[in-house]
Amino acid sequence: MKRIYLDHVAATPLLPEVIEAMLPFFRERFGNAQSLHADGQVVLDAVEEARTRTGRLINAEPAEVIFTASGSEANNLAVKGLASARRAKGTHLVLSAVEHQSVINSAKSLEKMGFTTTLVPVDPAGTVHPGDVEKAMTKDTVLISVMLANSEIGTIEPVAEIARIAQGRNILFHTDAVAAAGSVPIDVKALGVDALSLAGDQFYGPKGGAALYLKKGTRILPLIEGGIQEGGRRGGTENVPAIVGLGVAAEIARKKLDERAAKARVLRDELIRGLPAKIDRVILTGHPQNRLPHHASFVVEFIEGEAMLLSLDMKGIAVSSGSACTSKALKASHVILATGIDHATAQGSVVFSLLEDTTAEDIAAVLEIFPPIVDRLRKMSPLYTQFLKEGQT
Amino acid sequence: MKRIYLDHVAATPLLPEVIEAMLPFFRERFGNAQSLHADGQVVLDAVEEARTRTGRLINAEPAEVIFTASGSEANNLAVKGLASARRAKGTHLVLSAVEHQSVINSAKSLEKMGFTTTLVPVDPAGTVHPGDVEKAMTKDTVLISVMLANSEIGTIEPVAEIARIAQGRNILFHTDAVAAAGSVPIDVKALGVDALSLAGDQFYGPKGGAALYLKKGTRILPLIEGGIQEGGRRGGTENVPAIVGLGVAAEIARKKLDERAAKARVLRDELIRGLPAKIDRVILTGHPQNRLPHHASFVVEFIEGEAMLLSLDMKGIAVSSGSACTSKALKASHVILATGIDHATAQGSVVFSLLEDTTAEDIAAVLEIFPPIVDRLRKMSPLYTQFLKEGQT
Repeated sequence: MKRIYLDHVAATPLLPEVIEAMLPFFRERFGNAQSLHADGQVVLDAVEEARTRTGRLINAEPAEVIFTASGSEANNLAVKGLASARRAKGTHLVLSAVEHQSVINSAKSLEKMGFTTTLVPVDPAGTVHPGDVEKAMTKDTVLISVMLANSEIGTIEPVAEIARIAQGRNILFHTDAVAAAGSVPIDVKALGVDALSLAGDQFYGPKGGAALYLKKGTRILPLIEGGIQEGGRRGGTENVPAIVGLGVAAEIARKKLDERAAKARVLRDELIRGLPAKIDRVILTGHPQNRLPHHASFVVEFIEGEAMLLSLDMKGIAVSSGSACTSKALKASHVILATGIDHATAQGSVVFSLLEDTTAEDIAAVLEIFPPIVDRLRKMSPLYTQFLKEGQT
Repeated sequence: MKRIYLDHVAATPLLPEVIEAMLPFFRERFGNAQSLHADGQVVLDAVEEARTRTGRLINAEPAEVIFTASGSEANNLAVKGLASARRAKGTHLVLSAVEHQSVINSAKSLEKMGFTTTLVPVDPAGTVHPGDVEKAMTKDTVLISVMLANSEIGTIEPVAEIARIAQGRNILFHTDAVAAAGSVPIDVKALGVDALSLAGDQFYGPKGGAALYLKKGTRILPLIEGGIQEGGRRGGTENVPAIVGLGVAAEIARKKLDERAAKARVLRDELIRGLPAKIDRVILTGHPQNRLPHHASFVVEFIEGEAMLLSLDMKGIAVSSGSACTSKALKASHVILATGIDHATAQGSVVFSLLEDTTAEDIAAVLEIFPPIVDRLRKMSPLYTQFLKEGQT
């Protein structure tokens, strides 16, 4: 049985070109990029080429790219590093309620050091309203962080509008673009953001290769202190193969992004139309149109996401139920709750996220295999039994 | 011309077995270790196997191993995370004067938050005296960090003795074993340390695969916050291939460590005897015996380390001049200055660090090629000319 992998949001497979490009840096080019001898220089050149390529994906200068080991590290660096560097100007942060744990928990750790945070709500489609961000700003606000797209519900946020408001007030603006970068076009200059996080493992690059875009001239305090790597903004020996892989993946994403998105959108919309047509009481989460092209997410009432996930897995289909970063925490997602869905229903979260080689047959298989799984699980569900008893209100 | 790579301290080549073990995780096993489906589980199993293997190298339980992306990150996590978690008990830190930048700069950033630091001096061999650490402790001390071995001068520190003193006073003790792990036997229980940093790229493993040992029951605040990875102690998607590579490198190091060390010691001692015999006014840095088995470091008077490094490089020999993390900062190393060597002389630092496949011929080549380089550079050196003029005092 061919496995059908629809868990892009958790990890993407690496492109063969990416692996090929990385291999020499595990073999003969194993040197340290900071070494002054030839074994170091050849490696440094590769790191700088990757920096240019990564920057080009988002229309950034090479010097504006700080390599990190994960999207979470980039988010931690942005939130903690920018807020700390601006501490003398104020200690108030504004985040959306649907930010990733790495952003929210970074803010929480800043709170222990005297910062305060305002969480801006989202509407039922998961959209942050720029007006709400504006209302949350105080004269003490130093940093706003609103993600570009959400990995759990797919919604794309109006980042350019929010950035414009922030810029007008001289407040730094960071966007977590980990779920978006490589899948939707990004131009940091057009967006007007000061900082943006991205991760290669979300666009067919390697784990361990991620980056923070930081606008020229923006002061930041490092999270990982050490040597002079990354212009003193991030210490630690450069993970050269991962950086090289990220660069190649970024280069390919830049060229193939539109084609990938157009193809994914068609298949995604099959799921968005098909599943509610075949299954009763299933609700699309996130925005119906303004969402990641490869992303279809739902809550299925009366049953639990984990049960659906494991049942699909047994049938050879890999999906997720919320964020991979908390998949084992088994509690309702703060993201889905923020869209106004109740606690019990939020448990029934399931995310189908497509790869570039996902086919119409794969989607047809999901539409055939998933409804009977839901039926079976509901038959075992006390919540469903109760619902049937009370009459389908 | 065969290149002779003698820059172990900057980076080691990866063992073929390590690369082989990593490859499947770039290909079919690309999943996210936190995913609940089969694509995640197979990857999680590999991460946990690597955790066991990494722990075994230092006699730690698997649950005591926190994977990080670099030795610098492990050091930052240890110093900031342990000190912050103990803040209510006190705000004084004790470090040795020869710690790596990642330790020293982590302490400096804690100072901005109200901590104070005492730097303990070293003797001319670079050794930290336990009595000096004891003297530096106050009733406010919460953390001591003294490295196991120094990458610039090779000296191995009396960590077990210092840890015993710390333990007696209920002060946490961290050791940066990045330069030592995989090259000298380490038993965290025998050493009595609470935390220990190591990095796979120092023992033929991949960049990006490093770890912090943290003794069971020790509280730490995460540096990178996010999901539930690493028991909530380090957020971010696990870099599975790097972790797997680290595990394999650790397993091999555990088995081959003694053999590697015995072989390296003989060749190292050739350099330690041979270079001062062939070159006038060259001084061994660090401890003459109690040093890393693969490490021979010197200061050559009247000339600069960079010039020697580049000249050797042109002859096909790769060495370093101080720490790779600051090789481009072009200032005298704080480590060499701490041993009492003056500023001008400290500039002439050169480190030969051997690989497991370094041969007697390689060392013979160095002994032949290096002295004429020193001669040539000295002829261009105003300092040397002045010294000759003043008479060889």
